Amino acid sequence: MEGNHVSTTSPAVFRTLVREGKWTIPTSGVCEGYAQANLLVIPKHLAYDFLLFAQRNPKPCPVLEVLDVGDPEPKLTAPAADIRTDIPQYRIYRQGTLVEEVLDLHNYWQKDFVAFLLGCSFSFESALLKAGIPIRNIEERKNVSMYTTTLECVPAGIFHGPMVVSMRPIPSDLVVRAVQISSRFPSVHGAPVHIGDPDQIGIHDITQPDFGDPVEIKPGEIPVFWACGVTPQAIVMTVKPDIAITHAPGYMFVTNLLNETLAVF
Amino acid sequence: MEGNHVSTTSPAVFRTLVREGKWTIPTSGVCEGYAQANLLVIPKHLAYDFLLFAQRNPKPCPVLEVLDVGDPEPKLTAPAADIRTDIPQYRIYRQGTLVEEVLDLHNYWQKDFVAFLLGCSFSFESALLKAGIPIRNIEERKNVSMYTTTLECVPAGIFHGPMVVSMRPIPSDLVVRAVQISSRFPSVHGAPVHIGDPDQIGIHDITQPDFGDPVEIKPGEIPVFWACGVTPQAIVMTVKPDIAITHAPGYMFVTNLLNETLAVF
Repeated sequence: MEGNHVSTTSPAVFRTLVREGKWTIPTSGVCEGYAQANLLVIPKHLAYDFLLFAQRNPKPCPVLEVLDVGDPEPKLTAPAADIRTDIPQYRIYRQGTLVEEVLDLHNYWQKDFVAFLLGCSFSFESALLKAGIPIRNIEERKNVSMYTTTLECVPAGIFHGPMVVSMRPIPSDLVVRAVQISSRFPSVHGAPVHIGDPDQIGIHDITQPDFGDPVEIKPGEIPVFWACGVTPQAIVMTVKPDIAITHAPGYMFVTNLLNETLAVF
Repeated sequence: MEGNHVSTTSPAVFRTLVREGKWTIPTSGVCEGYAQANLLVIPKHLAYDFLLFAQRNPKPCPVLEVLDVGDPEPKLTAPAADIRTDIPQYRIYRQGTLVEEVLDLHNYWQKDFVAFLLGCSFSFESALLKAGIPIRNIEERKNVSMYTTTLECVPAGIFHGPMVVSMRPIPSDLVVRAVQISSRFPSVHGAPVHIGDPDQIGIHDITQPDFGDPVEIKPGEIPVFWACGVTPQAIVMTVKPDIAITHAPGYMFVTNLLNETLAVF
């Protein structure tokens, strides 16, 4: 089943396909117009510090929904969905180390788990594309380039660390428009955190991303940096929780939220 | 000392006046351009549920800062300030009942306290006034009219209840502009939650506010309703915590944040 066949599928129908094992590939391009989300599951005793970290760092950690303790249903963003089955692939971390990739969480779910759904850059990339702003990583069919920076997140409780950013080269005459458009979507990383000179934020070789793939920066293009959803995962893993669970990169949770309902204006 | 003498005082200097007992009246009009904040102090065991409630209800509960457990210093919004002394008047609630009004918290502070600073409507009222939009409660030197509605907040943990709204009559040709301007300030209640017919949100007699004072609605004016900072206090008090502390109405905490830095665009 190819992505373009399900671009117009409803999120509920798509999640059923996933739950029944009929969709096992990345979710890019599915259910067009609907927000996809990053998943982070941690035990309750870490949840206050993480929620506070997210409140203090809304650009890298834009919270779409926090599920109730032990509850696998995202009642606000995807009623009747089940976070344990409705993502095509999960990653299990023990003591901060990736130990397993699995297709559902039935053997892993704990009563003390709190699931966080965090906004994903797919939403603002879609808005940029609609405005005629090219997205190089999509053109080159690559993962976006991501870098660890010298921008420190605001600490909260046990959590602290540097911000990870994604970079997209934008033609210089479209940079202002890219700022305007992404500013409309604070719950999916929002406005850029930096424009231009990568050295200013501690990136000394733009051709060597810390995560993802390098992309071409053409003459006349400016590197524009957005806070990245890898940040919260990286931050949580530094405290080496006994167990933490995330989606596998590219295998996202599809919510019932239209991207446009996330726009602040 | 009159308010207009300190309209240009810096927040740090103003807070020192308060701390030294030299400012004992409401804070309306002081430190023009700087955001003032509502205070809510609760014990740590209630803090996760309240922070989650705020995340799910950002319009009535816009969080400017959550202080660290037991820490009286708002390190992000007012470094070196002391939340126990820098507000002119506080209210002490025991089991949800107001038992005392005090001038500082030295005899009340607990190691397990978490202080929440929440956005205040002064910030968006200031922006509306600058755009030539009249604010009736300011013209009439009254408290804003507030109403309990049939709009239910999204529950979180032990917290649930109705949204309280404030109402400002706006000339019909300025309603759109009022929406646009307040939309820029999501961290101080943001866009209205309702425009027009009060019955739609369960307000059956607009002349009888549940809190604050009634104001005149002139011919050609539309009642416009914003989520109100009374909501979180009312919600918290329904669970009758052993102790909770707030500012006294009108006696706010003055932060170092310029209102304009709170604007999303």
